[in-house]
Amino acid sequence: MWAELLPVGRSASSGGYRRFAWNSADAECRAWFEQQARNRGLTYELDRNGNQWAWLGDPNAGGAVVTGSHLDSVPDGGAFDGPLGVVSSFAALDELRLRGVEFTRPLAIVNFGDEEGARFGVACIGSRLSAGVLSREAAYELRDADGVRLPDAMERAGYDPTAIGADGDRLARIGAFVELHVEQGRYLAEDQPVGVASAIWPHGRWRFDFHGEANHAGTTRIEDRRDPMLTYANTVLSARKKAKLAGALATFGKVAVEPNGTNAIASLVRGWLDSRAADERTLTELVAEIERAAAERGERDGVRVELTRESYTPVVDFDGPLRDRLAKLLAAPVLPTGAGHDAGILASAIPTAMLFVRNPSGVSHSPAEHAEEADCLAGVAALADVLEDLACQ
Amino acid sequence: MWAELLPVGRSASSGGYRRFAWNSADAECRAWFEQQARNRGLTYELDRNGNQWAWLGDPNAGGAVVTGSHLDSVPDGGAFDGPLGVVSSFAALDELRLRGVEFTRPLAIVNFGDEEGARFGVACIGSRLSAGVLSREAAYELRDADGVRLPDAMERAGYDPTAIGADGDRLARIGAFVELHVEQGRYLAEDQPVGVASAIWPHGRWRFDFHGEANHAGTTRIEDRRDPMLTYANTVLSARKKAKLAGALATFGKVAVEPNGTNAIASLVRGWLDSRAADERTLTELVAEIERAAAERGERDGVRVELTRESYTPVVDFDGPLRDRLAKLLAAPVLPTGAGHDAGILASAIPTAMLFVRNPSGVSHSPAEHAEEADCLAGVAALADVLEDLACQ
Repeated sequence: MWAELLPVGRSASSGGYRRFAWNSADAECRAWFEQQARNRGLTYELDRNGNQWAWLGDPNAGGAVVTGSHLDSVPDGGAFDGPLGVVSSFAALDELRLRGVEFTRPLAIVNFGDEEGARFGVACIGSRLSAGVLSREAAYELRDADGVRLPDAMERAGYDPTAIGADGDRLARIGAFVELHVEQGRYLAEDQPVGVASAIWPHGRWRFDFHGEANHAGTTRIEDRRDPMLTYANTVLSARKKAKLAGALATFGKVAVEPNGTNAIASLVRGWLDSRAADERTLTELVAEIERAAAERGERDGVRVELTRESYTPVVDFDGPLRDRLAKLLAAPVLPTGAGHDAGILASAIPTAMLFVRNPSGVSHSPAEHAEEADCLAGVAALADVLEDLACQ
Repeated sequence: MWAELLPVGRSASSGGYRRFAWNSADAECRAWFEQQARNRGLTYELDRNGNQWAWLGDPNAGGAVVTGSHLDSVPDGGAFDGPLGVVSSFAALDELRLRGVEFTRPLAIVNFGDEEGARFGVACIGSRLSAGVLSREAAYELRDADGVRLPDAMERAGYDPTAIGADGDRLARIGAFVELHVEQGRYLAEDQPVGVASAIWPHGRWRFDFHGEANHAGTTRIEDRRDPMLTYANTVLSARKKAKLAGALATFGKVAVEPNGTNAIASLVRGWLDSRAADERTLTELVAEIERAAAERGERDGVRVELTRESYTPVVDFDGPLRDRLAKLLAAPVLPTGAGHDAGILASAIPTAMLFVRNPSGVSHSPAEHAEEADCLAGVAALADVLEDLACQ
């Protein structure tokens, strides 16, 4: 099962995955999911937002227990982020069938579409649409780097974009959602293969536009320059310093430069800030401080700084009783995470929990992302225990 | 003549020009050149390296006086850099014909191909090939951003790439080359529409590769990060500081990031340094200092820094007697420039001079690049005087 999925959308040069919403690698992953469902005699469903469901029992009975994750990736992402949760869900179902348990509630495995937001710049589009957190109108406005609109991308991939939108009826039939995911930090110790999530840090993306003046790099006197690269560089360094002081995270990982010529002073540098903190007040203050520092340096450089908040997710506290129940059942540690997940989106609508599988290096969103086989198998066993506990009593 | 050329390859969004070697805008500019030659009854020639020539008199007689410049542009370049020299050459010939002068030497107007190096990363490819400064083998290895090889690009544009290479015989038939160009700084005062070049500063391009480790921006602890964006940012700022102290120029105008995702710490940041100084020792020391600063910061960040010199042009002193003759004839000031030119390449092979037309803002390589009409007309008159002095006695 895992072996079939491994080569899909993997770049020969980087060894990383390029499974982006509605591209051909994404289509192959989706075909794989449907096949896994059919192999197990599950009822396959594609919902109005392009999320895939595999049902054991009656989808309409209500109180369903749902598990799953996503199959798409960041640019040059690793093999585990997303797929581990989906593969473990099928494996946990196989395990439960071996155990010969009796299901008292409907069970579903889900693959949420476009979790990483690699193509349209907004993460968790599938679950956001279903939860009504992203409106259909806003989704229709999204474009990828080539200017392709989201509905056009869906249509080209053979999906009906006119159907997208909030899917409250479907969510109302779910009693609990549990997402298993590879850990993305190094919080789990060596003897802790599995942990239970307490909360997701509030996080967001902010775009800084540094507007300077294009000019010749070889002839323009230093005092005549309005070079936005300087303001950008200073902002990168001050963001790191201020985040460290605040015990938070601030990262510039994406840049776009115009005209981006070796012998031309840039006219425009765009830098995207990803920032996260344990609470919303810290995060808000941190971003405000970074903005102030950018504006101050911009004044020195003759560069105008414009800030746009592209996305923002408040703190997510996972369902307390469910979290405690799982931690007790598994005798597992409880830990927070800085990463967004579909589970974080759904937590506002239904009781939701997350299991993390240990990541020895903490590396993720990279071809070097890894989890030991023994830890992955422990994850499957833990998920099977959780599903048995929730769906078989 | 000027009006026909203005719209070619101009971007509707930026107002800047995108005339890159062998693209369709370049082809239109070339067609325009050939038409201008034919309109004046000049003998049109395309040389083995794709440079265009328009001859009055016998190209093989020897001792020819040549003027001209280039028609290609940097990304989103201005209207004057290059075209002003070509247009002024044709206008100066028209002026000389009006004056009824008698030519005692052959005269040619030239359009050198791919001066800006916007497509293949090496400037002055046309003149470098002819002067034997760029070998045919090295040119064959050049690729554009889409991976298209230079010979393939030439072939697609209908040119024969097998012919390229040193063209010593052609250069040996040239007695003097004069290039008129818009000034790219603000050294000419308001009552000085035209200046004569003394020298071109030594200059080069260096590529800094900052190798870090891709990771998740939302979950990786600050102490576990190896973020190359920080090292890059610090290098940008230290390059500026050190250049200012040295009275030199250092600019990062081009960046490429991998994987360039908002929520991913970069694995690789590539930054291109353009640096220039009045003398070669200052330039060499400056780049070494920037490299040291980058390596020091890289050690703090866990980032490996690799430096590649992509191009280097030593100082060019223009022909002394020719420079003095022109400055005296025109009663014009003599000034250096930080910009590379085809005239700088040819100066090693033949007596070469440059005329600069005043640029009130100093802005160039930008849509805002400008020269006043009166100054341009003064440039044409000065070039006509020079050509009369050199070719009619």
